[in-house]
Order: sequence, then structure tokens, then C-alpha cells
Amino acid sequence: MKHLSTQSPDFQAELKALLAFETAQDPKIDQIVADICADVQKRGDAALIEYTNRFDGMNAQTMADLTLSQADLQAAFERIAPEVQTALKTAAARVESYHQRQKMASWSYTDEDGTLLGQQITPLDRVGIYVPGGKAAYPSSVIMNAMPAHVAGVPEIIMVVPTPQGERNDIVLAAAFVAGVTKVFTVGGAQAVAALAYGTETVPQVDKITGPGNAFVAAAKRRVFGVVGIDMVAGPSEILVIADGTTPADWVAMDLFSQAEHDEIAQAILIATSQQYLDEVQTAMNKLIEDMPRRAIIEASLGNRGAMILAKDLDEACEVANYIAPEHLELSVENPQEWVPKIRHAGAIFMGKYTSESLGDYCAGPNHVLPTSRTARFSSPLGTYDFQKRSSLIQVSEQGAQKLGRIADVLAQGEMLTAHAKAAEFRLKKL
Amino acid sequence: MKHLSTQSPDFQAELKALLAFETAQDPKIDQIVADICADVQKRGDAALIEYTNRFDGMNAQTMADLTLSQADLQAAFERIAPEVQTALKTAAARVESYHQRQKMASWSYTDEDGTLLGQQITPLDRVGIYVPGGKAAYPSSVIMNAMPAHVAGVPEIIMVVPTPQGERNDIVLAAAFVAGVTKVFTVGGAQAVAALAYGTETVPQVDKITGPGNAFVAAAKRRVFGVVGIDMVAGPSEILVIADGTTPADWVAMDLFSQAEHDEIAQAILIATSQQYLDEVQTAMNKLIEDMPRRAIIEASLGNRGAMILAKDLDEACEVANYIAPEHLELSVENPQEWVPKIRHAGAIFMGKYTSESLGDYCAGPNHVLPTSRTARFSSPLGTYDFQKRSSLIQVSEQGAQKLGRIADVLAQGEMLTAHAKAAEFRLKKL
Repeated sequence: MKHLSTQSPDFQAELKALLAFETAQDPKIDQIVADICADVQKRGDAALIEYTNRFDGMNAQTMADLTLSQADLQAAFERIAPEVQTALKTAAARVESYHQRQKMASWSYTDEDGTLLGQQITPLDRVGIYVPGGKAAYPSSVIMNAMPAHVAGVPEIIMVVPTPQGERNDIVLAAAFVAGVTKVFTVGGAQAVAALAYGTETVPQVDKITGPGNAFVAAAKRRVFGVVGIDMVAGPSEILVIADGTTPADWVAMDLFSQAEHDEIAQAILIATSQQYLDEVQTAMNKLIEDMPRRAIIEASLGNRGAMILAKDLDEACEVANYIAPEHLELSVENPQEWVPKIRHAGAIFMGKYTSESLGDYCAGPNHVLPTSRTARFSSPLGTYDFQKRSSLIQVSEQGAQKLGRIADVLAQGEMLTAHAKAAEFRLKKL
Repeated sequence: MKHLSTQSPDFQAELKALLAFETAQDPKIDQIVADICADVQKRGDAALIEYTNRFDGMNAQTMADLTLSQADLQAAFERIAPEVQTALKTAAARVESYHQRQKMASWSYTDEDGTLLGQQITPLDRVGIYVPGGKAAYPSSVIMNAMPAHVAGVPEIIMVVPTPQGERNDIVLAAAFVAGVTKVFTVGGAQAVAALAYGTETVPQVDKITGPGNAFVAAAKRRVFGVVGIDMVAGPSEILVIADGTTPADWVAMDLFSQAEHDEIAQAILIATSQQYLDEVQTAMNKLIEDMPRRAIIEASLGNRGAMILAKDLDEACEVANYIAPEHLELSVENPQEWVPKIRHAGAIFMGKYTSESLGDYCAGPNHVLPTSRTARFSSPLGTYDFQKRSSLIQVSEQGAQKLGRIADVLAQGEMLTAHAKAAEFRLKKL
């Protein structure tokens, strides 16, 4: 891991270099995705089946071969081990309970002229959840994407998940069952995104697509954005741990590993206020790495993008955190409540030594879909609110129209929009 | 205008064709914008000054020539007519009051194990507002973009507005003064967007850019999205009026004009439940068009994209509205409150005959930046919430870590993420 100190005259430049990540889109991938999207838009199911057979090694004849019903999901749930059933149900219930508190409600008020103003909140009609298949299958991701939509009141939640060589992951399907997914199509890649965005004879057109995927999926989501809504196109996952030295060093070491094990470009950074503690964590890492099955990935990630930063105090550490605007921030300190108000930018704040990031990833309740790559400066965790939307409500009273009409008249004339002015004037009483 | 009837067997296809709008991006514009953005990112102020001199016919030597302070804005305010001053201040106060009610507050709760869960809400640090200059100068747009940021508590609001040939619009600058803008740079186009996104020696880097612009501005916003947040890239403006025949026909005619006068690709649609009323509105339009200064634009817009639709009843009209998901929806009916719950998708709902869209555009209180091109299916009006963001809060108690640790352990092992499992296990008490 790199070692940085806030006292170094080059610290700002070094930090900037550490965080730099090239997100340029690959024009070759873009072209392939453009062709697939256009083909699925034009030929519908036929194209979707062809691509699925070709890319996923399937042998589907009709869309029925690629469709799972609620009953199929339930059967998968019944096949998994009881302890996994319980873990999924407990996690889903906690995520549901937390996301209930994010639900927006319609509101309105009436001003002194009797004019009503407000917003009506409605759920989206239909959403699509993309779930990666194959080697990296994440049931937790199903819960984190589907449950907020379910809580928002979305009547129809369509999930797509590729099943390369026909291999279905029962825990993923069971997670769909507990999270309220309506229907599953076993398709993936750009073709699945296109099918959801444009609709086919069998796949209904959705209003928004969320969920992680590979470079083809990301490019497809970017392409269909505007036709449907999308969540963010996520960058590599990141953690920043701020430690005051009171958390056991091996706990912090393992928290850094848990980020690094995601992939070689994940980023794990530790900031502490003493060199001795940084050394203790390094020693713990040297020991713990021996038993890690994903050792090669962890070492690559920490070697490429990991860092230890020595700060002079926690105030300074919080300022560095605000610059980094990390996806995950562990405040592994005593009295974390004292420091939270100093954090302006972070996807999720894990407070105190018992709050390992992994608890938040699976079951604490908050969503694990979080803004990456410094976008926490301007964006938020996935939530119930992402599956609801607002319509402004305006009911101007006859009396209100007299007052507002005169203002609108002046401003519309200032913009030389005569019809705007006239429409307001028509509502004025003739004197 | 086209005439459609919901009774026609081709109605769905005709409606779809009516709404179709080609939003394909121009690769030539994209290339020019890419070059400008890269150049401004690299050369900063020098590039910004060069492009401004070249494209806006300016003769600036330094950024000081392109910078306006609060004092300059105040001076502009003092130069405009008193009735315009009053109109701006009244509109700004109403918009402020409405947007105060959208402000999100932090929340948290503690579960039965003493684990704290919640979200911390913070404003963005710094935002950029793009305001078009030249012929089409819209002071109302300044208020609608800057005020929500101001209400959200954004400490620094940077406005950019091009001043071709040095021509400054006092009402636009006065609007910036009343809406709480911190500083103005008289630059525009892709170069202004790039300066805000990447920062220059003089222009501070912002966290989000909002506001309308031409094709170059839209392409630049799309390009820098991810580095900074952006609002939606807007399509042409639209209105749908649902009329039960109780609103004077000339009022509705003028409301359709007020949409159509924006530009040739704006869309105005009227749905009524009687042919006679549709005919009355047509007659009123034929008469009123004579006195419209923007007659050519209105006729082009209504001819290209306008329509009258005959529906069998208001229930059916609401269903058509939900398909269209219009930016502006006028429910020009008696008892609009009865019909609002049937509207699932609309940017803003203008209820009752006194609520002309133009009152909402300027001064009723709600925002006039609204989702276009059917995106109201999944997105919302610009609001205070767009200038705030959320960070999840999780503080797991020692007791909570015992319960959550076991669940996370099971699920992490199901995903073969050993370090995630170990990080949870470490927090379990040794038995």
C-alpha cells in the first residue's frame, strides 16, 4: 500500500493521483451495444433469444424457456438451506423496515388567497432490476434493488439475470422471491437492458432500470437513459476508514480486505492519527492475508489503489474524507456521533468499531447501492425515493389569479412572450 | 392541428406517432464539444477567454472582464423599472416559500438492539447555474434554478450567462440578485460548462450544473455528467390540456398558444369530451392568432406537433394523459381535485380554469423546470431536494453486531466473500 502524510508538501497532488480513475468509455463496446440495442428494439423477442443463445450458451426456442414465474422463485426459495432462508428473510425485513422510512408522501398547502400548492407523489408503474449472473452472483444485490421499489409501491418489478450455460443460482432466485419481484427473465447483457427499455412481445417496457452489470450493461444503460430512467453507472467500490486507534487493528485490517476482495480496482484507504496504529494495521494485514481465499485480488487491489494516510488529528481526517467523498466511510472512533456532523460527503457512514461495512452490505437496513468515484458530492444512496416521483400541484383561486396574473403579465412581457402574458390577463376580472 | 379520436382503431398508433421526437445526438456537435471541454480542462482561463471572444464577439483580456460581483447584480436590479423589481421580488418570495417545504431533514431511529439507523442530509457545496443569453433571455429561469439551491443551503451559487457582443440583460442580472446568486461569469456555451465542471484558475469547480441551453450546452452537460451532477437534458416543452368544456374557449386557446410560442418544436395538445368544444377552441384560436407577435412560431408548432383529441369521457382522457406523461397538464375542469388522483404521470398539474400554465411558469411557487418527453414517468420537477443529498447512517451496537453478524456471515459466505464474513465474525463475542 502507498503511504501518504498530510504533512507532506505534495499531499494534495498525491491524494488527487491516488483517486484518479480513468472512466473513459470504450468506443468498440459502445458500437457493439448500439447494434444490439437497435436490433432488440426492431426485432424484439427473436433478437433477444438469439443473443441469449449466442452469448450465454443457451438453447432457448421461445421466451417461455427464458421466463420464471413467482412459483419458480418460490421453489428456489424452498430448495435452499434453512439458515440461508432465515438470513435472506431477516435481511429483507430489515431493509424493508428502513426503506419504509424513506417513503415520500404527497403534501399541499393553501395560501392566503385560497390558492392550493403542493406535490403529488406516485410510484413508478414498472421497473427493471438487472442482476449479474454467472460467477459473481449477489443475492444481496437483488434485495437492495428490488425492496426499495417494492416499498415505493411499484406494482410490477421485472428482474433480468443471465444464466450462462443454463446455470441458475437458487439463492439469487430466492432473494427475488423474498424481495417482491414479480417476474424474472433469464437474460442478461446489453440485450436484456434493451428489452427492458423498449419492450418486446414478451418483456414489458419498464420506466426505470437499476442494478449493476459489466461494461456492456453499463454502456447499454447509458444508451437507453432518457427513454427510461437509470440509477447511476457505478465506478469501482471504495472504502475510507478513519481510525482514532481504539478499534482492534485486525478488525480494521479485515474491513480493508472486505473492500479489496471485490476486485482489483476496488479502493481501500485508511486514515489514522498515529503512525504506530498504521503500523499495527499493516502487521495485522500481513498476518491475515495468509488465510484469504481471494488473496490475489486483495493484494492487487491494495497494491494498485490502496493507501495509508497519516493525519495530524481527526478534524483534518474529516476534511480529507470530504475531499474523497467516499462510497463507504467507517468512522472507527470513539464517540462517532461527534464527528458525523463534520462529514459533508459520503455515501454511507459506518459509525463506531462494531459497524463493519459488511454489516451494512447485507442486513443492517440501509441500501448498499451507493455513489462511487466522488459522486457522493452530489448524489445519494439508492432508496425508496428513487422509485417514486413528484408532480407539482397548482390550483389558483379566482382571487389568487388576480394577484399572480399581474406579476406573470409583467415578467412575461419582459421575456417577450405575449401569449403567456395574455393567458394570465384573460383570468383577470374586467374592471 | 391534427385531429384524433380515441374511438379510432388507429388511435394508439396515431398517438405514438404524435409524441415521437428524434433526440439523436449530433456527432459533429459532440466532437466540437469534446475538443472545447478538453481544451478548457487543460488550459483553463486562457481557453475560456479565447472561446468567449471568438464565439460571443467579446474582447476580454482577463477573467476580470468576464466577472460580475454581487455589487454589479445589485446595480442591475436598481436600474430596472420599479414594477419589474416588484414582480421579480414577489415571484422569488413565492418560489422561496414553496421550495422551503421541499427541504429534506436528517432523520434517524434506534432499533431494539440499540443500533442507530438513518440518513444525514447535507447541501451541495457549490453549484453552477447555466442561463442562456442573447435573444432569448429568461429571468424566470434564473429564479427557478437558483432559488432551490439557495433554499437547500448551498453556500456558493455560480451563474454563467453569455453576453454576445457584450450585451448584458439587466432583468436577468436583477433576477440573479433576488435569487441569491453568489457570482456571475459572463461566459456561455460548452466552454462555460467545462469551466464549471473542471474548474479554472478563476472559475471554481462546482458539484452540479443545472439550467437550459442550446445543443452545445446540452452536449457539454452530457459529457461532464459523472464529474459533476446535472439536471435532465430537456426536450421540447409540452402542454396537455384536458377540458370538460366549462373553461372559456379563448382561455384554453391562449394556453395552447403560450406553449406553442416557445418554439417550432414545442407541443400543445387538447383533449376534450365534446367535438363542439374542440370546435369552439379552434374558432377562438383562428381569431386570436391574428394579434400574436410570435404568430409564425405558434403556427409552425401547432401545425407540426399540435393536436386535438376527442375522448369519450374524463376517465379516458386521464388514461391518455398518463400515457403522454406531459410536462404540463392543465385539468381545466370543474372539481379538478376529483381527477388529480387519477393522474399518475405529469411534471406539473394545473388545476381548474384559473390556473393558466403561465402563472406556474413565473410566480405561483412551484418550479418551472419539469420533466419533458414522457420522462415524467420516472422523474420529477427540479426542487430543493436536487441540491441536497443523503448519507446513510449506521451505528451498530455491540448487541446488534451479534445478531447482524450472523446474518452477514451466512450471506457473505453464500457470495463467497470471505473477508466480508470474517469482518462480521470478528465483531462476535467469543463464547
